[in-house]
Parts: sequence; C-alpha cells; structure tokens
Amino acid sequence: MSTAVPTTEIDQRLHNLRVRLEKQGIDGALLLYPIDVYYFTGARQNSALWVPVEGRPTLFVKKSFQRALKDSLIEDVRPFPARMEIPAFFGNAAIRIGLTFDVLPVQQYHFYSNILTGKEFIDISAINRELRSIKSAWEIEQMRTSAKILCDVFAKVPDILKRGMRELDLAAEFEYLLRKSGSDGYLRIRAFHQEIMGLAVSGENAAMEGCFDGAVTGKGLSRAAPYGSSIKPIREGEPIMIDYGLIYNGYIVDMTRIFAFGGLDPDLERAFSLSIEIQKWLQENLRPGNVCEELFTGASSLAASAGLADNFMGYSGERAKFVGHGVGLELDEFPVLAQKFKSLIAAGHTVAIEPKFVFPEKGAVGIENTYAVTNSGCERLTLLPDDPVYL
Amino acid sequence: MSTAVPTTEIDQRLHNLRVRLEKQGIDGALLLYPIDVYYFTGARQNSALWVPVEGRPTLFVKKSFQRALKDSLIEDVRPFPARMEIPAFFGNAAIRIGLTFDVLPVQQYHFYSNILTGKEFIDISAINRELRSIKSAWEIEQMRTSAKILCDVFAKVPDILKRGMRELDLAAEFEYLLRKSGSDGYLRIRAFHQEIMGLAVSGENAAMEGCFDGAVTGKGLSRAAPYGSSIKPIREGEPIMIDYGLIYNGYIVDMTRIFAFGGLDPDLERAFSLSIEIQKWLQENLRPGNVCEELFTGASSLAASAGLADNFMGYSGERAKFVGHGVGLELDEFPVLAQKFKSLIAAGHTVAIEPKFVFPEKGAVGIENTYAVTNSGCERLTLLPDDPVYL
Repeated sequence: MSTAVPTTEIDQRLHNLRVRLEKQGIDGALLLYPIDVYYFTGARQNSALWVPVEGRPTLFVKKSFQRALKDSLIEDVRPFPARMEIPAFFGNAAIRIGLTFDVLPVQQYHFYSNILTGKEFIDISAINRELRSIKSAWEIEQMRTSAKILCDVFAKVPDILKRGMRELDLAAEFEYLLRKSGSDGYLRIRAFHQEIMGLAVSGENAAMEGCFDGAVTGKGLSRAAPYGSSIKPIREGEPIMIDYGLIYNGYIVDMTRIFAFGGLDPDLERAFSLSIEIQKWLQENLRPGNVCEELFTGASSLAASAGLADNFMGYSGERAKFVGHGVGLELDEFPVLAQKFKSLIAAGHTVAIEPKFVFPEKGAVGIENTYAVTNSGCERLTLLPDDPVYL
Repeated sequence: MSTAVPTTEIDQRLHNLRVRLEKQGIDGALLLYPIDVYYFTGARQNSALWVPVEGRPTLFVKKSFQRALKDSLIEDVRPFPARMEIPAFFGNAAIRIGLTFDVLPVQQYHFYSNILTGKEFIDISAINRELRSIKSAWEIEQMRTSAKILCDVFAKVPDILKRGMRELDLAAEFEYLLRKSGSDGYLRIRAFHQEIMGLAVSGENAAMEGCFDGAVTGKGLSRAAPYGSSIKPIREGEPIMIDYGLIYNGYIVDMTRIFAFGGLDPDLERAFSLSIEIQKWLQENLRPGNVCEELFTGASSLAASAGLADNFMGYSGERAKFVGHGVGLELDEFPVLAQKFKSLIAAGHTVAIEPKFVFPEKGAVGIENTYAVTNSGCERLTLLPDDPVYL
C-alpha cells in the first residue's frame, strides 16, 4: 500500500540540508528527533543521524538495528556506540554541530555537549523546518492520495451521523473510518504544548476556549485531556464541526466540514458564507512570493469588514493568530499564515487553510482544505465540496 | 463522568514536591510540560507553573486563560506575562530553579535561562517522576475504573475478531470500543523517541524487531510509522496479540491478551504458560522494599531455566531489558522493572507487568496486567482471566 521514499529523494534532501548548513558555517547536523531522522533516511527507528557537510552520513541505531538496516536508504548504518566511543567518531576538531533545539530535550543536549567537548552546538530548527516545508513532487503525490482518502471518509459522514449521538460517538465512528482507510493512529504534532487527534464537536462545546493552538478546541472528556469530543449529545440546529487529519505513508492532510440536523441559524450561515469568501481570497493569494503574514491580515480584514472581527479564529481575547498552517509529516509545519510570519510563500509549500468563526453559546462554523503551492498559484488537494451538510 | 482532582490531593502533591525540592536545596520548580502542570494544578492548559518552596504557587497561562481559571485548583492564575516582565517576578536573588530536563526542549530552556540571569537551573526530572510514581488512594480509584472499563473492552474481542480480517481491521474495531467506552484518543508517552497508540498484531509481524521500547512493536502501515497493526490478514493458528491502554480521567491502565483461530502450536502454548508462571512470581514479589532490578533478573532467570532466555521480551540481540513499567498519567512512568533500576518498590506504585516471549516467524505470546502496590503486597487491577481465547 505505502511505498518507500525513493533514494533520489533522500539524496536531494541531504543535498539541500548540506547547502543550508554550509551557508551558515555549520559542519554537520546531528538529528535525533525520530521524524527528522525518517525524513533524511527513510527509516523511523530510535536512532541518531549524523550528516556532515563533507562526507557520507551515518545512522547510529538504538532500536531496532535490524529494522533500520532494512528501511534505511543511507548506507552507513551502525549500532549505537558506547558513550566513550562517541568522541573518537567526531574527532578533535572544534567543529560546529547543528541540533534541532525546538524539540530536543535538555537531557539529550547535555548528553552530547558533555561528551563532545570543544564543539559548538547551533540551533538548526529553522533550517530543518524550512527545508521540510518545501515538498517534492513525490511528497505532494503522497498528499494527493491522503487527501483523496480523507475526502472519501468525510463523504461517509451522513451515514454515521445519528440524532442524539454523543460527540464522542461521532468521533469513534469517524476515527474508525479513518483507521479502516489505512490512516495511522498517531498524529504527529511538533509543538511542545500540543497533543490532539482531531475534533468532532458541536454547539457551545465548539465555542469553549481551549489549550489547542487553533480556533476550536472542544471540551474533551476530562480536565486531564480538555480537548476534542465530549459526552455531550448532538442537538438539532447546532453546528457540528468535524476537523481531522488523515495520515497516508506518513503524510497528513487536514480538513474541516460542517454538518447540522435541520439547519443553522442565519448568523451562523452568514459566517459560514464569509469563511468561504475568505477561503476564496486566500486561495487566490496562496502563491509564490506573497508574504505569509499578509494572508493572515488580509483574511482578518475581510472578517472585520463583515463585522465579525471578534469571532474570527476564536472568540474575543483568546483568538488564534493564524488562518493556515503547513502540513506534511507533522500537523504543524511551516509556513504559518500568521502574525509576525514575514517569510514568503514558495512553490512546494503545503498548507491547510482554515478560516473559522466562533460564537459563544452557539458554536463554530468554517471550512478547512489543504493546498499545495505551485509555481504560479496553488492546487487544492481536498476536493470534496465545501457546503455544510444538513440532515 | 470524570471528576476533578480533589483540592486536598493537589495540596498534598505540592507539599510533597516542596519537601523534595527543599531537601536538594532547590528554591522552586518551574513546570512547563502540560501533564506535569496538570498533576500539580488540575488544569491542563498551555501554561507555566511556578512552585516556590516558600509561598504560594502561580500559574501563568498562554492558552486558554479562561479555561485555566475554571479548571485550576490553585488560586493564583495569571495571563502569561510579556518576556520583559518575567525577571521582575522572580526577583534578583540567585535562586536555584528546578526544571524537568527530560522533556524540556532546549529552546524553552534557553528562553528562561536567557531572561533569568544569575539563576541556577537544576534538573528535577527524577524528583518529578518519583513523586508522580506514588499514587494516592484517589488516583488508584481512577485506575480501578480505568481497568474495569478496559477489561470490559477486552471481553468483547470474541465479538469483533473475524477470520480473514486484517490486523488493521482488528485495531480499528478495538480502538472503536475503547473510544465508545470513554477513552481519550491520545496516549501520553514521556520518552523522546516513543509514539504508539497500542498493538493488534499477529504471527510473524508480532515478532518483527521494532523501534518501540517493548517486547513487541508490530510492522505498522509504512516505514514512516513502523509500529502497530499492518494490513496483513490474520491467519488460522497464529497468535494474535492485543496490547492497549485505556485512559479514564487521564489515567492509563495497560493490558495484553492472546487470541487465536484454532489453537497455538505447543511451543507457543508452553511459552504462554511460562509467562503466567513468571507473572505469578512477579506478583508475589511486587511488594514494598523489593528492588526493581531484581524483579527483572528473577523473571529473566525463570525464562532462562526453561530454555527461553533468547525469546524473553524480544528475540536475540534486540530484547527489551525490562519486564514491567509504571503507568499513570503517562504510559512510561516510574518504576521500571529493569536492569540498572536499583530503586525499591513502594506502596502506591502502579505497574504494568508484561512477561512476553517472541519467536521469529511464529509470533509473540505473553500476558500483561496492571497492579497497584499495597503496604504488604499488590492488588491486581485488571481482573479479566489471563487465558488465551481460542475461536
């Protein structure tokens, strides 16, 4: 079903990394986060990857060495060395080593900085995330497949949505369809404070403030996991928001659709229409050379012109400050269409665009689709119609 | 359904933390990892918790402030301050601040160490994990409930297990039952290299080496997520291993059972019986005062005496070096019944014990139950019979 990363792809990724490292005067990258190692080797094992600017990369494997031997597309795969053998491998030169400080725990950092004395350690989080944000044709093809499967799952919602069911029942049914379609059970999020699998939420629960860094969090099942579906029954006339990612061959595609029993009140219908207008404007402006932040400010202006500034991407004081986010091997990749994000949109970016409106007590409406940026504009990957589905 | 942590419980936890900090000459703990903050406040929001040894704790909240106000059982809840305001809060004294270096990313560490100049930062990972490992009566009650629900789900496996279904279909059905029973969708694992939701694996796929730090990993759906269920159909006569945790009110209970169409070959049946003998020995020795490591070496000796040393907790060179692990708010808590783990079992420890045997090509068999250590021995929480179920 899923296919290995092509070797040419791995070579290109390593080349791109080396070019960026060299430009910043860094001698090599020591990659420790599993998904970063996977990106550059094709093997997601418990391991450490050394990519020198000069010379071939080496993968040191804790577990499983046998599995890494089978999966790795780089040649030099070795068992993880004893602590005392590590300094000899890196030699005596005062080299500069890149690490991804955005995810690396301090204990791991100290392990390497204590044994590799005389080396300088540099944060390459931005290099890594920027590099990862530009998808190859092969990666976009994986995401097209992911999008197609996800649309098929969303198309089945009218079959699973029943009057009186709990949000949790809807989540269970939807997640069942995702898994049966071949989606992995674990959704990767890079940010330190985030953990979520998806949202099936309704009415006032969709409007609750929350820890998730998005417009909608949900109430959840307990204070210990205060996000996602709750045991609240879904009622007639309230908006039901389903927001999930599907993971195919490691690649996430993200989308949101709105459902309701009966219909929605006119305020919500108007806000939904506005989210479609904003999506249209963003889709027209999602092209190489445009500034990420300006897509957010443009979308915010459209919301403000319609008198819905306070409801855009959350409510009042706790609104999310973005309208789209990169997706790929992780849910929260670069670029972010957000305040203070001054970088430019580039061909190969894959972005989930999600203008949403939140109304206290009533709930949340909006849309989300995933796009791939082309040389001249963008291609929409999630091709299911945007309309709310009334049952 | 789920209940808030009692305030008395939070007071006791904060007291225990302060006693341990003071003993090590640390002036306060700055807790940043969401589940650590939850443990000490009852609120899992995106926030930072300051617990001084002297004086009252303060919760600084990024998102959601409103939700933290509702959920927090400590009184002083404030919006997260601007960067420049943080030094004034901590004052000029050269205090020693505890951080959990096991999970804290270097970027976050640098943020605080750069603005709080003149302070010393100390790793309190062990303090935090040891404190968390001792469960209160209230916590054990949550885990009894979690165990009961999980046993009810396992009891339904004969209804969902169908000849010819894929491992993935079984996983989807099992996870559906977990979710419908009120289990959270996201399973917390603390270790940097780990991510998994559970296992429904069969035959040779259960014997594949893998990245997961346990006896069995599974093949998974792709090299990007090489763990858990695959699309392999389940065949007559091969062992089917289901290993999942259920999360109730934040608390995880972990168990494993074996199923098969027809029966199992005599080697596997003998190994299964041995896993039950080892479990019995471990259960007798899981009591306050015993050394964690000795439970692992004792279990290993029993496996070796039966001639199955090479198959115990994995196969050959890539065997896991433990036979049990703490569970609670995270899947991988203290204590670990493992090599080099010299600490003592204590009343209030909650431990998943999982003697398992792996046979290349054939698959894996074994058992897993979760126990709570009492003053004089232990209480088994997962009360479903251990026997393999033949269909």
